[in-house]
Amino acid sequence: MRNFQLIGKSGKARRGILHTAHGTVETPAFMNVATQAAIKGAVSQSDLKRLGCQIALSNTYHLHLRPGDDLIREMGGLHHFMRWDRPILTDSGGFQIFSLAKLRKIREEGVSFHSHIDGRLLFMGPEESIQIQSNLGSDIAMAFDECVKIPSPREYVQSSADRTYRWLLRSRAAWIANIQRDDSVNPGQMLFGINQGAVFKDIRCDHMKKIAELDLPGYAIGGLAVGESHTEMYDTIEAVEENMPNDRPRYLMGVGTPVNILEGVFRGVDMFDCVMPARNGRHGHLFTKHGIINIKNEKYEKDDRPVEEGCGCPLCATYSRSYLRHLFKSQEMLGMRLAVSHNLYFYNRLMTDIRDNLDNGSFQDFYLTNREVLDRRI
Amino acid sequence: MRNFQLIGKSGKARRGILHTAHGTVETPAFMNVATQAAIKGAVSQSDLKRLGCQIALSNTYHLHLRPGDDLIREMGGLHHFMRWDRPILTDSGGFQIFSLAKLRKIREEGVSFHSHIDGRLLFMGPEESIQIQSNLGSDIAMAFDECVKIPSPREYVQSSADRTYRWLLRSRAAWIANIQRDDSVNPGQMLFGINQGAVFKDIRCDHMKKIAELDLPGYAIGGLAVGESHTEMYDTIEAVEENMPNDRPRYLMGVGTPVNILEGVFRGVDMFDCVMPARNGRHGHLFTKHGIINIKNEKYEKDDRPVEEGCGCPLCATYSRSYLRHLFKSQEMLGMRLAVSHNLYFYNRLMTDIRDNLDNGSFQDFYLTNREVLDRRI
Repeated sequence: MRNFQLIGKSGKARRGILHTAHGTVETPAFMNVATQAAIKGAVSQSDLKRLGCQIALSNTYHLHLRPGDDLIREMGGLHHFMRWDRPILTDSGGFQIFSLAKLRKIREEGVSFHSHIDGRLLFMGPEESIQIQSNLGSDIAMAFDECVKIPSPREYVQSSADRTYRWLLRSRAAWIANIQRDDSVNPGQMLFGINQGAVFKDIRCDHMKKIAELDLPGYAIGGLAVGESHTEMYDTIEAVEENMPNDRPRYLMGVGTPVNILEGVFRGVDMFDCVMPARNGRHGHLFTKHGIINIKNEKYEKDDRPVEEGCGCPLCATYSRSYLRHLFKSQEMLGMRLAVSHNLYFYNRLMTDIRDNLDNGSFQDFYLTNREVLDRRI
Repeated sequence: MRNFQLIGKSGKARRGILHTAHGTVETPAFMNVATQAAIKGAVSQSDLKRLGCQIALSNTYHLHLRPGDDLIREMGGLHHFMRWDRPILTDSGGFQIFSLAKLRKIREEGVSFHSHIDGRLLFMGPEESIQIQSNLGSDIAMAFDECVKIPSPREYVQSSADRTYRWLLRSRAAWIANIQRDDSVNPGQMLFGINQGAVFKDIRCDHMKKIAELDLPGYAIGGLAVGESHTEMYDTIEAVEENMPNDRPRYLMGVGTPVNILEGVFRGVDMFDCVMPARNGRHGHLFTKHGIINIKNEKYEKDDRPVEEGCGCPLCATYSRSYLRHLFKSQEMLGMRLAVSHNLYFYNRLMTDIRDNLDNGSFQDFYLTNREVLDRRI
């Protein structure tokens, strides 16, 4: 059986089911980010299920540094370590090396860098990244890539994309070797390749065509939401999408706002992840179906209504805007937890609404109604 | 009907039921501290019920400063504001004025002080404290008192205890006036008087006799756990207890460790509160029936067992020592929340065990078995 079934379409938008070693994911799906094997904001794994999370994402770079992927392997892999029995995707570590680590040096073999925690010198190439992800035992491993900043000179982007392709060949070889081992933590682990090329459409498309030929279980568009305009992002997705295989899941990495996600689905993307719901929640910014509210705003001081009328999240089901504002003003951790819970619930519910509208043939209306509303500040 | 029923005894230890406007409290009971109308460590009100909490305690001083008791009154009182439908006790604010506020000046009328948040000059006397607690609508209000530090000169302690008695008369008059008002937030609010006198037994006992004559709904022993030895604390409790009315609930303020509580029950105390379970939890110190563990200890790095085998709390029911240690080392808020949840569950379960042993006639054995164990570091 194929790991991905396409069960419906509306224009370019796709409705699918992804099968993993830890259960299925209905797509389009949002992956809830558990960077260090935990959701930021004191949200627990059992909360996460109540918030509608289908699949979690953890970070190879962070877990390699602390507590160490060897330790997690010894503890039975990431699923057992964090007691999460649903699917997990791990990124390659590349993005964090390029955004967090210090004094990095890129060579053909891989990247030397200093840990952002204790400064020790480390090296990661495709084999190391895949080995770490094998130790973690995630359901989906990501190929090791370089995420170039935007803007970057065309020449550098081209040579980086070429190297990322060579790294993908090595990632694939390491992945195949790892899942075939007798002591593999997760023999059902999949590998997704990552498309790069900044906002140069020809580099993006050539790269996408080449990696599509490798017949991987899935493909991601990486290197977006790193400084380009929304128009550049959408145009890039449209160009790349033309060259992505129809029968494989498509993942737009690190994106984004609710409208970004809606626009991504509209353009044929199946999977998303972003720290935004948790990060914005920790700052008191809450997504609602009417737009974004800042709970610290004085107008909510005596507002006994829930943040969003009718919302079924743990915040809105019980507490008032007035109380949440008090928690934020008093720096009570409970405020962050409730706000993050609401935002994750909002994102997961948005994906449910998108899927329901795809199933019911009403997605185009849903798209047009919501594309202007969701990111509005109210 | 009396607000307190004594339903069993073992030596001096008492088993009772306290009736409040928001339901009953089985005693001996531990009150879970929600200083600013929230439990520290991101524990929610619905969590609190699962942790076995019967009654919460909030702070008059903190809520007066932020968000303001007028606002809370306008929002329907503290129960509605924080969505907690079980009993609430509010302290008088005195302890915080004497421990947190700056540049305080004590006169017969009350205390002038500067807010620890923004420095503004405030005044609180018995009438103000009771008015704030009336606005909050707690089920149990505490009389306004001075908590003197230990050691203090005998002369000062005597004059302070005398003033605290005069303040109690004024607190009582203000309380009676407030609960009789048509617009009272909680007409069923009780007032507890507070015994003071540092570790001078004669001052303590004289003071206790005088306040017992006022026929209040309950009595507290204040001003302990502020620097004296455990022996001094236990001796003081024993001396005061002789003079406390049998048919009223007795509350030992701000105490303490699990063993302090067990010793308090043994000496005839019914109610306790302490920030310790939440504060220690936030630092990774966990109470277990075998003693206290520090989860940051390296020996727990690869320990897949729960913190306490057989414990039914949200931490132990799901997660391992190894994972909790990782959360603390990685400074993930989830670690604090799980540790605080465990400690509150531990305290509430200790009280359940105490009550069950009182009901079953086995309290003396329970006391002897546990008094050496619970505070041990393991």
